[in-house]
Amino acid sequence: MLGAIEAGGTKFVCAVGDETGKIIDRIQIPTTVPEETMSEVFQFFNKYPIEAIGIGSFGPIDVNVESPTYGFITSTPKLAWKDYPFVQAIKEAFSVPVGFNTDVNAAALGEVTFGAAKGLDSCLYITIGTGIGAGAIVQGKLLQGLSHPEMGHTFIRRHANDSYQGKCPYHQDCFEGLAAGPAIEERWGEKGNSLVERDDVWNLEGYYIAQALMQYILILSPKKIILGGGVMNQKQVFTYIYKYLPELINHYVFLPELSDYIVSPGLGDHAGITGSLLLAYQALQSEYQPQ
Amino acid sequence: MLGAIEAGGTKFVCAVGDETGKIIDRIQIPTTVPEETMSEVFQFFNKYPIEAIGIGSFGPIDVNVESPTYGFITSTPKLAWKDYPFVQAIKEAFSVPVGFNTDVNAAALGEVTFGAAKGLDSCLYITIGTGIGAGAIVQGKLLQGLSHPEMGHTFIRRHANDSYQGKCPYHQDCFEGLAAGPAIEERWGEKGNSLVERDDVWNLEGYYIAQALMQYILILSPKKIILGGGVMNQKQVFTYIYKYLPELINHYVFLPELSDYIVSPGLGDHAGITGSLLLAYQALQSEYQPQ
Repeated sequence: MLGAIEAGGTKFVCAVGDETGKIIDRIQIPTTVPEETMSEVFQFFNKYPIEAIGIGSFGPIDVNVESPTYGFITSTPKLAWKDYPFVQAIKEAFSVPVGFNTDVNAAALGEVTFGAAKGLDSCLYITIGTGIGAGAIVQGKLLQGLSHPEMGHTFIRRHANDSYQGKCPYHQDCFEGLAAGPAIEERWGEKGNSLVERDDVWNLEGYYIAQALMQYILILSPKKIILGGGVMNQKQVFTYIYKYLPELINHYVFLPELSDYIVSPGLGDHAGITGSLLLAYQALQSEYQPQ
Repeated sequence: MLGAIEAGGTKFVCAVGDETGKIIDRIQIPTTVPEETMSEVFQFFNKYPIEAIGIGSFGPIDVNVESPTYGFITSTPKLAWKDYPFVQAIKEAFSVPVGFNTDVNAAALGEVTFGAAKGLDSCLYITIGTGIGAGAIVQGKLLQGLSHPEMGHTFIRRHANDSYQGKCPYHQDCFEGLAAGPAIEERWGEKGNSLVERDDVWNLEGYYIAQALMQYILILSPKKIILGGGVMNQKQVFTYIYKYLPELINHYVFLPELSDYIVSPGLGDHAGITGSLLLAYQALQSEYQPQ
């Protein structure tokens, strides 16, 4: 039996299941401080004969196995979790192999295995919600280089009619700073949920997302693009993305049929937790087949 | 013995050598029309007992082996070469395995095997010259998804003091449109070679390159960045890149020591032809070890 943790900034989802994506039990725990949240995590997994645990975590996190801070949540603005040794804490509690990656990489793994990108060796999973993050599968493997990608902070160009200054504490008007949920709320004075009927809101949002997708396509050339997260529950945004992206690319690179290329998660809200189960399975496999 | 072709928009370099990067003979041929240029290519290789040929080509090219136009140069503005079946022409002439990829991917392969990124499993090779292109090695393999990357056309933000309109026929003021050699010449009224003493020229150039590198780092997280091409012979540009990049990233992601992270090609002008020899070797290997 495998354990999975989808560690988000507002809630943790824990599940037990298997490598086929089957989930046997599942709970949600509010993300407060590590002592509190993790004690509930331990309690949940203690009920099951867990062989490995996979973690898809909010970040930034250290995923470099050669680093002294491997397995840590690093420079997060959620201060109680800053420098939290996530992998070490789980290993101490359960003495099982632990897989550790970003929440978005876990979701990308879930989607390429069982979801919208099933059967492909390449996909990009992007979440647009409280923040913007992305995970990628390249030639069958999770993209990782010097570190994990931080695609949400790519620069885009402000629309001529948009005077909102941007909300990113690091880059002000980067993609996340202009297009994540909190930016929508601050720009328009209301949460996105209350702006459903406002075409101008989603037109601008689609324009910004299309710009970011153009960068991702030119740089990574993914075979499928999956857009999740709270903001993407406003399905009307897709219409504007499909409108603006071809205008921006302007026939320079081949684009597949967009309604099939840029899609919602095939696993719905379960992409992250399913991918975390797969991270657990990968950790278990590599334990017995060291390279 | 292996053959290699570095097919550029102004010249072809052909070489024979081996998989250690050793070059035994080498010629340059002007890029005119296929009948003329390729007949010299055939003549050169006919002198040697070639077992395989690797091609690093200007593009865009079709690298999807399942496509009916695999091995073609596709939508190039060099009209004589548009829809030229490069791989097929070589196979018909020599009946040997042919490796085919972009010129910049070949250079990235050369650099990661024998050059500035030797020993790493990840690097990004960028050429800034008549155009801007990039090739990437990700987890030991050439990055390829739906197609090869076209990173030169990423959007960057115009500097407030730069009123030059940009030269890209597809995107006007994308990275290539603002920062490739022809843009430098048109903006300042002289070729870059004649502007060596003009700090303002290279300051602006470094600012634009730093913006593009920020996108590549956030999206790909390469372990080494190698900058080649004619424009990068102006080594003073590195100083400005090292200045602007950390300001743009603003501590959001970890950057290694920049003078060791962002460097000139370890193989100098031989990155592309060396990588093309390696493409030939890979083609030979995969011929005898089908997956």
